[in-house]
Amino acid sequence: MSEEFLKVARAAREAAAELAPLPRAPKDRALRAIADALVAHAAEIVEANAQDVERARTGGTSEAMIDRLRLDETRVAAIAEAVREVADLPDPVGEVVRGTTLPNGLELRQLKVPLGVIGIIYEGRPNVTVDAAALCLKSGNAVLLRGSSSAYSSNTALVKIMQGALEGTEVPSGAVQLVPGQSRDSVKDLMRARGLVDVLIPRGGASLINSVVEESSVPVIETGVGNCHVYVDAEADVDLAVQILLNAKAQRPSVCNAAETFLVHEAVAAAFVPKALEALREAGVTVHGDERIAAHGTGVVPVTEDDFYTEYLSLDIAAAVVGSLEEAVAHIRRYGSGHTDAIVTRSQGAARRFVALVDSAAVAVNASTRFTDGGEFGFGAEIGISTQKLHARGPMGLTELTSTKWIYTGEGHLRTSEGTVVAG
Amino acid sequence: MSEEFLKVARAAREAAAELAPLPRAPKDRALRAIADALVAHAAEIVEANAQDVERARTGGTSEAMIDRLRLDETRVAAIAEAVREVADLPDPVGEVVRGTTLPNGLELRQLKVPLGVIGIIYEGRPNVTVDAAALCLKSGNAVLLRGSSSAYSSNTALVKIMQGALEGTEVPSGAVQLVPGQSRDSVKDLMRARGLVDVLIPRGGASLINSVVEESSVPVIETGVGNCHVYVDAEADVDLAVQILLNAKAQRPSVCNAAETFLVHEAVAAAFVPKALEALREAGVTVHGDERIAAHGTGVVPVTEDDFYTEYLSLDIAAAVVGSLEEAVAHIRRYGSGHTDAIVTRSQGAARRFVALVDSAAVAVNASTRFTDGGEFGFGAEIGISTQKLHARGPMGLTELTSTKWIYTGEGHLRTSEGTVVAG
Repeated sequence: MSEEFLKVARAAREAAAELAPLPRAPKDRALRAIADALVAHAAEIVEANAQDVERARTGGTSEAMIDRLRLDETRVAAIAEAVREVADLPDPVGEVVRGTTLPNGLELRQLKVPLGVIGIIYEGRPNVTVDAAALCLKSGNAVLLRGSSSAYSSNTALVKIMQGALEGTEVPSGAVQLVPGQSRDSVKDLMRARGLVDVLIPRGGASLINSVVEESSVPVIETGVGNCHVYVDAEADVDLAVQILLNAKAQRPSVCNAAETFLVHEAVAAAFVPKALEALREAGVTVHGDERIAAHGTGVVPVTEDDFYTEYLSLDIAAAVVGSLEEAVAHIRRYGSGHTDAIVTRSQGAARRFVALVDSAAVAVNASTRFTDGGEFGFGAEIGISTQKLHARGPMGLTELTSTKWIYTGEGHLRTSEGTVVAG
Repeated sequence: MSEEFLKVARAAREAAAELAPLPRAPKDRALRAIADALVAHAAEIVEANAQDVERARTGGTSEAMIDRLRLDETRVAAIAEAVREVADLPDPVGEVVRGTTLPNGLELRQLKVPLGVIGIIYEGRPNVTVDAAALCLKSGNAVLLRGSSSAYSSNTALVKIMQGALEGTEVPSGAVQLVPGQSRDSVKDLMRARGLVDVLIPRGGASLINSVVEESSVPVIETGVGNCHVYVDAEADVDLAVQILLNAKAQRPSVCNAAETFLVHEAVAAAFVPKALEALREAGVTVHGDERIAAHGTGVVPVTEDDFYTEYLSLDIAAAVVGSLEEAVAHIRRYGSGHTDAIVTRSQGAARRFVALVDSAAVAVNASTRFTDGGEFGFGAEIGISTQKLHARGPMGLTELTSTKWIYTGEGHLRTSEGTVVAG
């Protein structure tokens, strides 16, 4: 592990110990100080960002990617505003999860507490640097940020300004740290920092997430890979199903809760598929379908098994006809990523069966898959969408950035082989 | 991965899919069938166990270890009775964790669901084979059991009888599987079975747990390492403190919630330490103390830094005098394992500070550390005690063997850039 990394990781660990017991008010004051500082130093941020943009342009990055990278004063103001919104959210820390007085008189409480030090590994936009820091601070955690090297100048400026803003507050400035260096070694350091880092959250493509899961000895929360399905049941309202499918696929194809496959029960294939193909074609979507899909229209590209595994994130969708709800569920279990899967049906029984049998973070009934989102769920903010089963599953808000602690209080309670004895 | 392993892991995965949607009643019937079968086949179990005992004896295993391994008809009856007790516990699966109707009319519910396939790696007594299987089945999970090779004959017999008992029930018999083979390769297979196994729970010594955490790509819940502290505050009732310390150390020294170090505030050292040394000596405990402890009595062995890191699990305890509550907390943060730490104090303020600052799964106030236990907490049963922060922290009961699933139900809800539109 590099000395530079150890230095920031230890600083974060120390800051975490100071930050964890703070109640809400000083944390909110610190977040507002960060928001003010971002606005006050907007010109500096834009200047640093210009270096990243220049480097990206020289390196031949596409205009679409450069637009994701670019910051101007308006975007900086929006980032600052998002920090203020996090300050306005309730603080989960200190919430009593369970509590009782045990038969022996011990008062038992389980409280939400911060996780400690959270490592975030991310690609793309520099706004994540500030969003992630704000959510971690609000939930009482220190954060080690490891952003894309393409945004390194922007991220360096943003973290420096956030640390400066914390100087005048009760939150230690060491609670926000940029992992130094742009090479892959710094990611490796993070993955090996068991004991210094409590959890790693990789945000990005499947290959980043897989490599972190495989290599990390720090516990990992997997996020964001969404191979989502829409299943059109035998009892579906066909026109409603077309609209839900179209929304799930085409309203914003680049996000993880967009649909990537539709499955249709053979009993409604003749009624549904022609309408679906027409609506998808009008929206510019290429359908990769099996023979029974292709039989109902033109322009269907033959589907391969790889297609069923693919998260396109584009105007493409795989499609197949199935003989039963159970066959649809088996397909989803086999090829899906456990993110969100929807059923369209008028049958209460079919909805109930689908909900019970599909093993995913979210199951939608007669609704678009696009609603699986911390904002839509009312969390106020989101650090990512977990597609694993441990700790957090589905959209992760502030609560998912906490652990718990048991506290029990007695007056000299001793445990003996005959039961509790109270000394005194 | 060995073909043998893949076969049982896939069988468990298939069984998990069938088992997950089952409500409580068929699961309880299956557990009672297992209990009945264990009693009916007690002779067979004792016979298989005799082979393990014989092998252990030939191998020169200590009588204490052989006693842990040995099963007789009475012990088999107790194991069966424990299964019936699990059947009597409430089922966490299906519990609504959170639920609301969103502003757009979507009905949102978060339900507890089984984790899927749980891998348990354990040492020692063969009763764990049945206890762990019962807890996993009750919470709707399939289980892959990898016990100690010293108990392989016993475990093989127990699993065969449990599978046989499940044959006549609605719970698929594949839901309980013994990992084949006794070599370390079978543990490696388990650790690499990402996608087939949802979580690994190692139960045993620190070295087993560390190697699993370092090597596993399957998510791991760490359990059981307890370097617990008793801090005697400046405001402590000295006699009460002696009794709590004695109970925490000596009532059952071999378990993870026994105390391994005591720290005493310098203001009460002169009053507390002589009494503590006397009481510990009478209980046969060797005190490894610093100079300020040794100044108050005889027979104190000089403490090393290694002692402070050590989970003795024996009649030994490390000890030091500290200058403040904060110094005690810093010691605990540095050397502790995050299991359970206790404060003895009359001061409400000191108790509050200690609880806020100590970063452990459980904090005890004026009570022995020995109460950190699923049974004592009222969970009815325990699969282990988690000393990590993700997913579960502290004693783990049935609830900790579940994940969650979000379900949202609409009537044609679509997400647009202007907000929700309901199709129809």
